[in-house]
Amino acid sequence: MKTIQVAVIVGSLRKDSFNRKLANAIVKLAPASVHFQFVEIGDLPLYNQDDDEHQAASVLRMKAEIEKSEGVLFVTPEYNRSIPGVLKNALDHGSRPFGKNSWGKKPAAIIGISPSPVGTALAQQHLRGVLATLDMLTLGQPEMFLQIKDGFFDDSGNIGEASKKFILRWIDTMIQWIELNSK
Amino acid sequence: MKTIQVAVIVGSLRKDSFNRKLANAIVKLAPASVHFQFVEIGDLPLYNQDDDEHQAASVLRMKAEIEKSEGVLFVTPEYNRSIPGVLKNALDHGSRPFGKNSWGKKPAAIIGISPSPVGTALAQQHLRGVLATLDMLTLGQPEMFLQIKDGFFDDSGNIGEASKKFILRWIDTMIQWIELNSK
Amino acid sequence: MKTIQVAVIVGSLRKDSFNRKLANAIVKLAPASVHFQFVEIGDLPLYNQDDDEHQAASVLRMKAEIEKSEGVLFVTPEYNRSIPGVLKNALDHGSRPFGKNSWGKKPAAIIGISPSPVGTALAQQHLRGVLATLDMLTLGQPEMFLQIKDGFFDDSGNIGEASKKFILRWIDTMIQWIELNSK
Amino acid sequence: MKTIQVAVIVGSLRKDSFNRKLANAIVKLAPASVHFQFVEIGDLPLYNQDDDEHQAASVLRMKAEIEKSEGVLFVTPEYNRSIPGVLKNALDHGSRPFGKNSWGKKPAAIIGISPSPVGTALAQQHLRGVLATLDMLTLGQPEMFLQIKDGFFDDSGNIGEASKKFILRWIDTMIQWIELNSK
Repeated sequence: MKTIQVAVIVGSLRKDSFNRKLANAIVKLAPASVHFQFVEIGDLPLYNQDDDEHQAASVLRMKAEIEKSEGVLFVTPEYNRSIPGVLKNALDHGSRPFGKNSWGKKPAAIIGISPSPVGTALAQQHLRGVLATLDMLTLGQPEMFLQIKDGFFDDSGNIGEASKKFILRWIDTMIQWIELNSK
Repeated sequence: MKTIQVAVIVGSLRKDSFNRKLANAIVKLAPASVHFQFVEIGDLPLYNQDDDEHQAASVLRMKAEIEKSEGVLFVTPEYNRSIPGVLKNALDHGSRPFGKNSWGKKPAAIIGISPSPVGTALAQQHLRGVLATLDMLTLGQPEMFLQIKDGFFDDSGNIGEASKKFILRWIDTMIQWIELNSK
Repeated sequence: MKTIQVAVIVGSLRKDSFNRKLANAIVKLAPASVHFQFVEIGDLPLYNQDDDEHQAASVLRMKAEIEKSEGVLFVTPEYNRSIPGVLKNALDHGSRPFGKNSWGKKPAAIIGISPSPVGTALAQQHLRGVLATLDMLTLGQPEMFLQIKDGFFDDSGNIGEASKKFILRWIDTMIQWIELNSK
Repeated sequence: MKTIQVAVIVGSLRKDSFNRKLANAIVKLAPASVHFQFVEIGDLPLYNQDDDEHQAASVLRMKAEIEKSEGVLFVTPEYNRSIPGVLKNALDHGSRPFGKNSWGKKPAAIIGISPSPVGTALAQQHLRGVLATLDMLTLGQPEMFLQIKDGFFDDSGNIGEASKKFILRWIDTMIQWIELNSK
């Protein structure tokens, strides 16, 4: 059975982040043929173009991890009705130096959870625009604007019964999207 | 003559940033009654909600500088068709902890320069949405989508003759906006 | 007691539109000092710049109604994660011919209701960007992303008890905003 | 040689629209294997959900033309920093009634020309968000933010020499995108 490599980027650095929890639960739920690699973005410096010719070790590591993946899964919280600065900072680093955009042509998928689905929806809308600029191929439908609710996660941090089938179906769609669009 | 305090935030950390140069030139061009304070954002950590109850010294400093200002001038480059992660990170810090949004009710103005005016226009469009969420009162018109061109700055880093009147008029509009909307 | 004139624009043409119902309920709930005028947009032609010098009677009527108002309340549904084409068409008409923008400098407020609050939130985000371009002064906070739920309206079409105080508070904020910013 | 069918939608109704001229020039420049069909949107009524079960003849015609195409080329002007209401109205019609979205899974490409490239860029950014919602697969790079300049068109309305190669390359990219993603 063919395996695929998917890089996972979580937009929040908070230890008990719901979106990190969501990413972990997706990894557990997905078929074994998908190898997920969590890409750390919390150790990146603030982007400064003056460093383009001597990028920090953490930047080079992140870029290498993206480049060897066949697709990228963004699990994104929302801050102030847009993408967390932390996530945008990682996207900016990965796009540089000029002509060495690590994101280019990679298929991508976006999912997120917030106290109201409004939060993640607004963040995802901005993220889509940025990913198009980065020349990523982003899965369009179904949109996944998840809401934090009792029972969404069970006590072991898995997706609860009520949402499991729904999330599994989306994971399948994501896998097909990445397989179809990765080179 | 009444003076007003305007905080200036430059979205780029690059030493020779065109937007920093633009900010400096605006400060020199503006009437003496406006006191500008450049607010450093390059020393902020990446935002992590776990630190909300013990914000870093640089975060507390930035929040104090915003709070004592009567208005905020954003001079913003564009990265990947949106706000630099560096700037969004600063906005995220300033909005926290919950209930202590330093930006709230402050009048704001946005200006930016990029190799094509498209860049700054797209960044400014995202920034406007975020500032509305932060409950800032952002000057609507005229939009200032400046383009880097020979002669825009003179050899001393001032606004060149061709654009000086145009920029001065905008500075006046900005000052009136801040006076009208600050409390 | 000073009265204010507020133009109301509903983005949906559907007879039983929830947003029209919401607009009607707001009118009934607001203090008597606010005179609301519903501005019809369903009789406008599709915008064609060739007609700028001889605008249709319905366009002239709409422009006059906006111009004599002191502020504009947009009650907006969402179509395909953005503003209804019907509403954007009305905004386009009102902004023309060049130099005769009927919306300019008017204070504005936005509210909307949809099956999920995500819908209206995404539409409102696009609408805010357009209104800034039109040089309107749009109320920032609180955002009103309402969700259609049993009991939101009572049997007479009024706002139900559970939401009445919340909506009334927003109406007050809107009135203050319009009074403060209208000339 | 395999032919492909591409539906062309022009966002402006103006007779001498630069974007219509651009669409015509692209059609003339493209290889003969691409069959373009201009889809009229100026005869559509304003969208009203009450008509979903008995759509107007012009709506049914437009939906059929989209459905039989293998991809859609949007040539879009900008009104008030967003999509023309006329174009959004067409998108709304094509997405209805619920469950009968004519746009779904179609590959799409966007191009536009405006007096400043800022205009079309901001319109295209909004359009991308809407097309993602409609489940279209939109070509990401290169972005085509064209500027109206002397010589862009020659006297016969063809793309002038200075831009011909550049536009031809984009047409090739667009054709490959549509071939790859159409079913």
